[in-house]
Amino acid sequence: LNQINQAAMALKDSVQDYIESLQNHICSSIEASDGRAKFEEERWAHSSGGGGKTRVIQNGNVFEKGGVNFSAVHGKLPEKMAQKMNTDPTEYFATGVSVVMHPYSPMIPTVHCNYRYFEQYHLDGSIKTAWFGGGADLTPYYPHLEDVKHFHRTHQEACDQIDKSLYPKFKSWCDEYFFLPHRNETRGVGGIFFDYLKEDLTKQFALIQSCGNAFTKAYLPLVEKRRHDLFGENEKRFHRLRRGRYVEFNLVYDRGTLFGLETRGRTESILMSLPPEANWAYNFIPPENSRESELYKYLKPHDWLTIDSI
Amino acid sequence: LNQINQAAMALKDSVQDYIESLQNHICSSIEASDGRAKFEEERWAHSSGGGGKTRVIQNGNVFEKGGVNFSAVHGKLPEKMAQKMNTDPTEYFATGVSVVMHPYSPMIPTVHCNYRYFEQYHLDGSIKTAWFGGGADLTPYYPHLEDVKHFHRTHQEACDQIDKSLYPKFKSWCDEYFFLPHRNETRGVGGIFFDYLKEDLTKQFALIQSCGNAFTKAYLPLVEKRRHDLFGENEKRFHRLRRGRYVEFNLVYDRGTLFGLETRGRTESILMSLPPEANWAYNFIPPENSRESELYKYLKPHDWLTIDSI
Repeated sequence: LNQINQAAMALKDSVQDYIESLQNHICSSIEASDGRAKFEEERWAHSSGGGGKTRVIQNGNVFEKGGVNFSAVHGKLPEKMAQKMNTDPTEYFATGVSVVMHPYSPMIPTVHCNYRYFEQYHLDGSIKTAWFGGGADLTPYYPHLEDVKHFHRTHQEACDQIDKSLYPKFKSWCDEYFFLPHRNETRGVGGIFFDYLKEDLTKQFALIQSCGNAFTKAYLPLVEKRRHDLFGENEKRFHRLRRGRYVEFNLVYDRGTLFGLETRGRTESILMSLPPEANWAYNFIPPENSRESELYKYLKPHDWLTIDSI
Repeated sequence: LNQINQAAMALKDSVQDYIESLQNHICSSIEASDGRAKFEEERWAHSSGGGGKTRVIQNGNVFEKGGVNFSAVHGKLPEKMAQKMNTDPTEYFATGVSVVMHPYSPMIPTVHCNYRYFEQYHLDGSIKTAWFGGGADLTPYYPHLEDVKHFHRTHQEACDQIDKSLYPKFKSWCDEYFFLPHRNETRGVGGIFFDYLKEDLTKQFALIQSCGNAFTKAYLPLVEKRRHDLFGENEKRFHRLRRGRYVEFNLVYDRGTLFGLETRGRTESILMSLPPEANWAYNFIPPENSRESELYKYLKPHDWLTIDSI
């Protein structure tokens, strides 16, 4: 048992180190892509223990608003959360990195990724349960099939490095998770999503490293490709209305956001995922055969890697 | 028992009639105040029975977006809702009117009110439980103490007509309900709120009539008073950021919104409460001693009827 716990301790530290280095890697790659704005960092402490580094970029050449958050917190699980998780309110440790980037141009998709590790302890300090979770998903406004394919293919390759059975499973899981029942739409074109991976933690750690490292390769080439595409007020108007859907998903359904708010995390770090601007118009439906109406064909689960046209 | 049920049937019909007439009264008063835009009505049917009339006003002289919804639906309570309400999933009837008005000018407060009646039945069709709920609350951006006092005083007078003990109770209930824990702010300056009023239904019906009739008297004089106040892009910017808080409350906490989405109500009618535009900026805090910073003094429970200055 002691040996197992030592291995577990080593894993916890390695995961936290990796997550922290991933934050650095993503931030420097995004700054290089943007070419103007720099992330500003704020360090914060959680009331129950640990803390994080919130990094926010604003008013860049490309990125209107975005955040790359790292956190490693520990403490006693709040009663309410323990109930939801169907467990006891004992000590826990959680570390993760969370990314949401909102480009100014509606021609460039919004992107999100999150990789996280959670441990819960028995009263004697031994590990009761531990798991990995994470994923990445893309939300375009004026979608291009080849871009969607690139984002998915890059994540497929990252999953395949660990196990060829993973991508199809995580792709479907993503479609289910990032779904707005009240709109009968997926949030965007998906990507991968997984949670509560408890078996073979060494393998799962390799998985989040492979996927975490793939993130900038999956997304930043799309930024390069679309950053000079033209748009006007018409496209921005549609952008703002669709960003409203992003707000709806994050505030009504997103488990990470609700977990953060309920455990009284740092509000500004949790809500940095919200877009800078969002609009709501009553009964907005884009005209048939408009470029805007194209998007709705993409907001359904498709097998992106084999589909030829949409 | 039969006599009681006949009285109950008569009450149900009278309540629905009143709620429907209140929708008409509020809509015509708001149109008169706006002077340009007219409500557009959409009738809809609920999948389980009944339906409603959604009325939306947009791009008026005063009102940028607003809605006055009437609904009277019945059916079998969804399993999930029954669990939340700690009851069985038997037949129910619910009728209500719900109002949210978003003026274009940040100098005019946003306003909300809702009055509703709910019945749940035993398997033999007799009434198992019935209650009234409702309230009205004001959300200013550039507040004036005298306006807040007027809104509260008008509702106090409406409550006093039924029972002098009600206003203080409903005023506190409102402060508790319209509170954003993650911001440590009330949504606005409150008003009145009550729910699950099950005793003496005749008295409660008189209460919602008195309060419902007071709504336009509490709000529209403030519109008249502030509609010519000057503002510029600076005030609009603040307006959009604060409207973000309105979105946060409605999507994260508002029971009516979440009930509506969970029972698969008509999405566009439920979400008509969202503002036309909302912004989020990381870590926005208005400069000390600015007019904008004044607002935050108002976002705490105060005894508005006795307070002299703030």
